[in-house]
Amino acid sequence: MAQHLLPKAFLGLIEAFGKIPGVGARTAERYAYFIWKSDPRTAHVLAENLSGLHESVKVCPKTFALISEGEDESHLYSDSSRDKTQVLVVEEPLDIIAMEKTGGYNGTYHCLGGVISPIDNISPEQLKIGELLQRIQDDEVREVIIATNASIEGESTAIYLAKLIREKSHEAKVSRLARGIPIGVDLEYADSLTLSQALKGRTEI
Amino acid sequence: MAQHLLPKAFLGLIEAFGKIPGVGARTAERYAYFIWKSDPRTAHVLAENLSGLHESVKVCPKTFALISEGEDESHLYSDSSRDKTQVLVVEEPLDIIAMEKTGGYNGTYHCLGGVISPIDNISPEQLKIGELLQRIQDDEVREVIIATNASIEGESTAIYLAKLIREKSHEAKVSRLARGIPIGVDLEYADSLTLSQALKGRTEI
Repeated sequence: MAQHLLPKAFLGLIEAFGKIPGVGARTAERYAYFIWKSDPRTAHVLAENLSGLHESVKVCPKTFALISEGEDESHLYSDSSRDKTQVLVVEEPLDIIAMEKTGGYNGTYHCLGGVISPIDNISPEQLKIGELLQRIQDDEVREVIIATNASIEGESTAIYLAKLIREKSHEAKVSRLARGIPIGVDLEYADSLTLSQALKGRTEI
Repeated sequence: MAQHLLPKAFLGLIEAFGKIPGVGARTAERYAYFIWKSDPRTAHVLAENLSGLHESVKVCPKTFALISEGEDESHLYSDSSRDKTQVLVVEEPLDIIAMEKTGGYNGTYHCLGGVISPIDNISPEQLKIGELLQRIQDDEVREVIIATNASIEGESTAIYLAKLIREKSHEAKVSRLARGIPIGVDLEYADSLTLSQALKGRTEI
């Protein structure tokens, strides 16, 4: 019904926005309408950034973080002040930003490119696990900190990785980010799963 | 801090997405990452649709609805089966879709292009009010149905328009969409403003 109520070019843009996960039909309509109402420059800047994206952004061959076309390696790896014997393993490149914002980590990173998920047909071979094992060997890594998400897939990937690293490398310690009550959250509002993890991981004072 | 953590082209796309109202930094990051992970075709289709938007979509000179470059007038106006003596006044072109989906309206539309809002510096002169008065005269309009939103600005624009139309055109009836309890909503869940409007607008059975 709505098909003939809007110009074809407008519907095309709605459809293109709708391809992004989390953008429903109404949201896509709002985005398209905002852009149409705005100065055409807004549309052109967005279009240019989209067109250049795949040529300008590639992955670091060591950490699989996002790097610019002109770079050889992520500066979070090549920077000599960073401790290459410590590797924090994340699912996706954007996870690095959150960790870097803490300002409290000075090791390097490794992006798996996802998690093991039989439901989504993602097997260990599709992740950058072989490359991680190679780095552990090449850089004589002392500690691997696994920081996959707290989902079922994230947890089982963490367990799988820990087992594999312990088998292949007897020197590297494997750790996992602590689970517990977030700062600023009262006990009564913490969910029971978090609370039981906080109890299990209690620390001496 | 996050500035140097992502490639410049990636940050550029995040910034461009962030210009859209309702798209925060984290959402813009997710959109950019989805597009980067997708086939480059997704980026190119979106870029093409953006580039062509302003050349391909214009406004109908009668109703101010969105029309394609090749069209002269909105078919919701030019279609001879539609009653030109009935005009439903909306704020924005997208509001027409919701009304058309009811399938119960056979008149024409008029998009104001917004509402009167002193806070946002929008005065009556910036809206398509003069054009509406002209249409009322030219098409010998019998009824103007005002369907601005239920916001303070929408309500005051409706009152302003009603007064103006009654002054300028003694023949045109001015009405407003009914306010009341939505279908499927129990009395106990209706907010008190809606409920008092529903009481005021009660209909005989």
